[in-house]
Amino acid sequence: METPFPTLSVALPDSSLIDSKSLLEKSLRVAQFARALSIFRVEKVYVYHDASSAVRPDDSKLITLLLEYLDTPQYLRKLLYPKMKLLQFAGMLPPIQSPHHKKFLRASEIRGEEARAGVLVRDRGKWVVDVGLDRTVPFVGNTETTRKANFKLSVKEGQLVANEIIGKVGDSEYWGYHVLIVRTLSEITSRLSSVKFLITTRRGKPIPLIIPSLTKSFNHTSEVVLIFGSPRNDVWEIVNEIDRDLVSSSLAINMFPLQGTNTVRLEEALLGSLAIINSIRA
Amino acid sequence: METPFPTLSVALPDSSLIDSKSLLEKSLRVAQFARALSIFRVEKVYVYHDASSAVRPDDSKLITLLLEYLDTPQYLRKLLYPKMKLLQFAGMLPPIQSPHHKKFLRASEIRGEEARAGVLVRDRGKWVVDVGLDRTVPFVGNTETTRKANFKLSVKEGQLVANEIIGKVGDSEYWGYHVLIVRTLSEITSRLSSVKFLITTRRGKPIPLIIPSLTKSFNHTSEVVLIFGSPRNDVWEIVNEIDRDLVSSSLAINMFPLQGTNTVRLEEALLGSLAIINSIRA
Repeated sequence: METPFPTLSVALPDSSLIDSKSLLEKSLRVAQFARALSIFRVEKVYVYHDASSAVRPDDSKLITLLLEYLDTPQYLRKLLYPKMKLLQFAGMLPPIQSPHHKKFLRASEIRGEEARAGVLVRDRGKWVVDVGLDRTVPFVGNTETTRKANFKLSVKEGQLVANEIIGKVGDSEYWGYHVLIVRTLSEITSRLSSVKFLITTRRGKPIPLIIPSLTKSFNHTSEVVLIFGSPRNDVWEIVNEIDRDLVSSSLAINMFPLQGTNTVRLEEALLGSLAIINSIRA
Repeated sequence: METPFPTLSVALPDSSLIDSKSLLEKSLRVAQFARALSIFRVEKVYVYHDASSAVRPDDSKLITLLLEYLDTPQYLRKLLYPKMKLLQFAGMLPPIQSPHHKKFLRASEIRGEEARAGVLVRDRGKWVVDVGLDRTVPFVGNTETTRKANFKLSVKEGQLVANEIIGKVGDSEYWGYHVLIVRTLSEITSRLSSVKFLITTRRGKPIPLIIPSLTKSFNHTSEVVLIFGSPRNDVWEIVNEIDRDLVSSSLAINMFPLQGTNTVRLEEALLGSLAIINSIRA
């Protein structure tokens, strides 16, 4: 199966939890974000700064921390996330179950090649990887720090070894999302050539009117970035001064024309908008 | 603003809560259903029987009861819903805030005509309506029982009076959904002429391939019924024998092609599917 084109990214403000009260409510909301991102194979989540609000540092930390936690295979969570107050409810959140969330296996069960997410650790003077097997696997290559990465396991001369996978893991399977913190949306463009920004807002053009032209434009785009405002304000009301031009030149879309409720919650907007974009790009 | 065409209905199985554990979890899930239905102006929710499962009576009751509760304006809830164990968490669920969820007003604030949901009650030998004002309003017409209905308030000879609105309340505003319990899906067709059933299933045709023909078919359809399976099984595995023909002749659609997660939860499928259909019909 071919990977659909273009790849999909999302930009959420660091004020995304501004109207949630308890840590439980906040955690449930981030879990809904994580599921929506994964269902639609979002590759990057940019968490950008809401310049208009006094964002609680714990809230913006919870967004990135919990998104990363939920994207991490079960077998690596204890190693990577020591007990933390912010992750108090993480264990009871609905799991994502993406292809990279693999099961514990015995090393002897690995035949041929297999990709697994893992962590580089130092063991008796050598680098090995913990990839959720009953033992660690020798690492082929150089590294200087312990860190999370993706590895290709293979059998060389009778021994199971691990090579790091740089970049994409295969073409067909979804391999989770990356969380990137950016101060401004302009930081995103500076890294990419053919990126298309779509701003979701009630004041945008109704989606039914632009589906044909939008579908066509996807042919010349390598990455679509869907930008969401905060639970309280539209994108252009919260971005940094430097992003004004970028925002005003981007296509603004009303994804929920004639909405029957006073508001659409951010987690609803995220899932619904991704469902629509997926239905015209896949 | 014209009402979009066709109207949208949804069929959910009475086993929709079969994999939810606590009453809180179940209540949160039904609240997500209610919000999705309201955002996309769904007019009817058919709760059909899952013939394959032993559905807990309390679960199927919670679905209909809580959906109706959440669609009811705040000012009528105390009157219509006495304290019930099943509604223990109803007060803390996210509100819908549809246009018919109007505020408390003083009767003297009503000028001209206004539609409000209300309840017929007997007061000193006469029928009056409670429509969330500081006093009840005399009812013009005949009735035999106390019941919920929609009323048109107007001033006649200096006095505020209420007439019942039969059928749709105006053309432009969304006025909530009706919950209908059906034993079989075939019961739905027997009431309607040009209804189109769409079955949502991972094993259906990928939505991107059928959007053009689907959009076109909406021109000849007065009601689209989106049918969902249970959290565990596809529609055709759970319907009554009598519905087999209907189900096998309906269009089956995969709304989430290339999904990046093992499963899509029912509340996610509902919101995402409605977002897609709304984006091509509005």
